[in-house]
Amino acid sequence: MSEAIPIIGGTGALGFGLARRWATAGQPVVIGSRSAERAQEAAAKLADAVPGAEAQGMENGEAAKQGPVVFLTVPFRNQSENLTNLRDHLEAGQLLVDCTVPLAAAVSGKATRSLGVWQGSAAQQAQEMAPDGVTVVAALHTVSAPTLNDPDAQLGEDVLVCGDRKADKAKAARLIERIDGLRAVNAGALEMARIVEQLTPMLISVNTRYKTHAGIRLTGLPDADHWQ
Amino acid sequence: MSEAIPIIGGTGALGFGLARRWATAGQPVVIGSRSAERAQEAAAKLADAVPGAEAQGMENGEAAKQGPVVFLTVPFRNQSENLTNLRDHLEAGQLLVDCTVPLAAAVSGKATRSLGVWQGSAAQQAQEMAPDGVTVVAALHTVSAPTLNDPDAQLGEDVLVCGDRKADKAKAARLIERIDGLRAVNAGALEMARIVEQLTPMLISVNTRYKTHAGIRLTGLPDADHWQ
Repeated sequence: MSEAIPIIGGTGALGFGLARRWATAGQPVVIGSRSAERAQEAAAKLADAVPGAEAQGMENGEAAKQGPVVFLTVPFRNQSENLTNLRDHLEAGQLLVDCTVPLAAAVSGKATRSLGVWQGSAAQQAQEMAPDGVTVVAALHTVSAPTLNDPDAQLGEDVLVCGDRKADKAKAARLIERIDGLRAVNAGALEMARIVEQLTPMLISVNTRYKTHAGIRLTGLPDADHWQ
Repeated sequence: MSEAIPIIGGTGALGFGLARRWATAGQPVVIGSRSAERAQEAAAKLADAVPGAEAQGMENGEAAKQGPVVFLTVPFRNQSENLTNLRDHLEAGQLLVDCTVPLAAAVSGKATRSLGVWQGSAAQQAQEMAPDGVTVVAALHTVSAPTLNDPDAQLGEDVLVCGDRKADKAKAARLIERIDGLRAVNAGALEMARIVEQLTPMLISVNTRYKTHAGIRLTGLPDADHWQ
């Protein structure tokens, strides 16, 4: 059996959408939430929606212990608080996939604008705050939560993955590519997250104009498996 | 006959590649350069490469007077100097399409990193420096110059266009879409250039890893003409 994927903030739109897609692909998931009760409700909802889903719900700290690759899908407003809370739960050797986008909406600004993060990006803030031995990669900023949550919507887009070691990015990429229609692309070092995180406000601007849920695809990449 | 397209810095890789593609599409171009002689040489080279090309070469300031929509394709290192020189040549009512990317390479840094521009982006710097009545839109940051210059290479990608008025963006878009395989997408206000300009260092990072010339395509957009 595949190892479970803990999703911190898994009751939110992005986290739940990922959980749904992974469950559909036969991948066990653990939905984390500040409230164990809400997490369990979300897991039950997922089991109803996806026959055969292997889904558990638990408080974020407990959820973080349930698998080697942990996805952090909380809004930027709550990222720092969550990382502080996770300090006693994450263990050296785990990989943390940060999906946070520093939208200005976090401080009542526009969703088409972003905040400057002192460390360079939300992902670099996550790396600074993660316990020793826990590596951070950044991914999944550009995948639309409504699209993930719509079982009839077909995905056909890329996920730009940033991190300092290819082996870590490859671990995240393998899980991301379990989701039908997602291709994970190696976008560079973790510092590149300061660019990739900015794609979300740009896409939000496009979505407003075109009444859609746009995604990103890179052209010109070779067809071979990018992660070998 | 279509109006000519002045290309400031048209002897450079991006400018010449655009000139080549427009000439192929039957669009008259005026290649501008600091040196009238080099501009004329480039125009002659273009006429050799593309049978029937309508190409002229002249000093940048003269070139800028030859059409209503002027493309600025110089490196960031020279953008400010060029805008100063163009002040006496651009006229109210003209549109300036800024293609500048503030790569850190301009100050001997890495091409996968960028410089912070005080105004927010190179395009906003261009708007600040342009004469009264000359509007700036930003575009074409993500299109590979080597791909444009390779007559056998087929394009199939998007150009993200930023500007404060849709009518101005539409004028630029119509010219961009004269090039086979390019779709112009309305990415938002001019300030959005601070995000779109950053895509280039990210693509350079991808190009290094995948040995390619990547481009951007947005997924999920409606098929209709975006500019009506």
